[in-house]
Amino acid sequence: MSIEKKEQDMRKRIENSFARQTMMQTFGARLREIAQGRVVITAPILPIATQQQGHGHAALSFAIGDTAAGYAALTALEPGMEVVTAEIKINLLAPARGDLLIATGRLEKAGRRLCVVTARVQARDGAGLRDVALLQGTMAPVPA
Amino acid sequence: MSIEKKEQDMRKRIENSFARQTMMQTFGARLREIAQGRVVITAPILPIATQQQGHGHAALSFAIGDTAAGYAALTALEPGMEVVTAEIKINLLAPARGDLLIATGRLEKAGRRLCVVTARVQARDGAGLRDVALLQGTMAPVPA
Amino acid sequence: MSIEKKEQDMRKRIENSFARQTMMQTFGARLREIAQGRVVITAPILPIATQQQGHGHAALSFAIGDTAAGYAALTALEPGMEVVTAEIKINLLAPARGDLLIATGRLEKAGRRLCVVTARVQARDGAGLRDVALLQGTMAPVPA
Amino acid sequence: MSIEKKEQDMRKRIENSFARQTMMQTFGARLREIAQGRVVITAPILPIATQQQGHGHAALSFAIGDTAAGYAALTALEPGMEVVTAEIKINLLAPARGDLLIATGRLEKAGRRLCVVTARVQARDGAGLRDVALLQGTMAPVPA
Repeated sequence: MSIEKKEQDMRKRIENSFARQTMMQTFGARLREIAQGRVVITAPILPIATQQQGHGHAALSFAIGDTAAGYAALTALEPGMEVVTAEIKINLLAPARGDLLIATGRLEKAGRRLCVVTARVQARDGAGLRDVALLQGTMAPVPA
Repeated sequence: MSIEKKEQDMRKRIENSFARQTMMQTFGARLREIAQGRVVITAPILPIATQQQGHGHAALSFAIGDTAAGYAALTALEPGMEVVTAEIKINLLAPARGDLLIATGRLEKAGRRLCVVTARVQARDGAGLRDVALLQGTMAPVPA
Repeated sequence: MSIEKKEQDMRKRIENSFARQTMMQTFGARLREIAQGRVVITAPILPIATQQQGHGHAALSFAIGDTAAGYAALTALEPGMEVVTAEIKINLLAPARGDLLIATGRLEKAGRRLCVVTARVQARDGAGLRDVALLQGTMAPVPA
Repeated sequence: MSIEKKEQDMRKRIENSFARQTMMQTFGARLREIAQGRVVITAPILPIATQQQGHGHAALSFAIGDTAAGYAALTALEPGMEVVTAEIKINLLAPARGDLLIATGRLEKAGRRLCVVTARVQARDGAGLRDVALLQGTMAPVPA
């Protein structure tokens, strides 16, 4: 199978998996970029997803950061595999204010049993982009 | 102020804060118990909150675990304070299968600047309760 | 093999593994208890293991907490297996003051691929025991 | 005070603090670089600091990663301040094999109450450098 074909297959697998995550649709999240070891997901800060002060809930940053990181790991796996989050940690850097969150997931270390991943979540508002969260975690490959 | 009055005030503050978190309503989450240093929140596993295999999304366990842990910290703080999550880590133990998730947050160490918290999330299905996630994190007290 | 024999074997495996960790000897650490899913390790707060304020270094609490947690996982594995730390997180609750640190590791979830563990580290001083650290992490079983 | 003087003062504060950490001397660790928001510490993999398979112990990678990250935070603080680790998480990527570990700490987000930091630990052997650990954590500024 050509490299090009492999990449198309990989993209399709990720898009299909993403489409089955109803949580992503609930948050209005979108897959924006898929590259080897790097995936970008965005989500608006919807009125249905706030914490008590009216900012985006930590679980929203978590959801798209975790998902971007998971798919970043999946880009390195063979067809027929999925990943599940074994564990992940999030540091919140600033309130999630603005109109859009942008999560960039990265594969730091690929492994047959475990993949180590990171993600950075930024918020876009009138003044530009601002880091709102950093994640670091472990994805476990499993048969799809 | 009597101890009884203080506890009533504390419960009311937590209920009011919880009611302002639209994310909790989106997930159908409910505050079930509030005790000194211990808060229980439940949420059904709704069709809007799944991952790609149809189980509850990690972000759902995260959302109610983080929130239960945060309010467990808030039980130890003076009136006029809120907490925000500084960081939290989640280990996923088993797929979130069943009809209900139950998150029990605990305050491990109260502090003026930082509170250390843990949470355990269980899933209820026909066979009983099963642990699905453990969380450990840090809450930062801030003026409400 | 009788249950008694199995337990003796398990204890011997853990004692042998512990004896090969020169880091444990450097810190003067000792294996104090081995039970199913629960291991206790102690270490004095030696002058060679302090941070800049003269208290026990976070790496000392980490070392014995991580090791106690790892062996707690090992109690559930078949002969011929070892564990390595995949990841672990430590929250520091209080300065490590006193003469002795006591780390209690627990197996929270056994798995063939991954074991989830926690540990609590306490410091003993004239006034009694005080919690100094909480750990939560993941151990990966590997052939010995 | 000139910027140059400020930088000299900052370097001296970090060097003095490092010199008081006996744990760093025990491990033969050295401060190699101090720049704004970035600190590099190295340590040999000594025979006194191994785990059961003879590789560098996770607590060694933790010790220098945590310390490099802490001083990276300190570069952004005013004179008269120290930092203590509130919490930190380490993912182990590969066995710590070779002759030298190199930890690069980075300040990701400075704050008056909390600083978010990361560190990458690499091992040097005949074949070059290899990532062995990633850390992400929180430092709390305190009066020195």
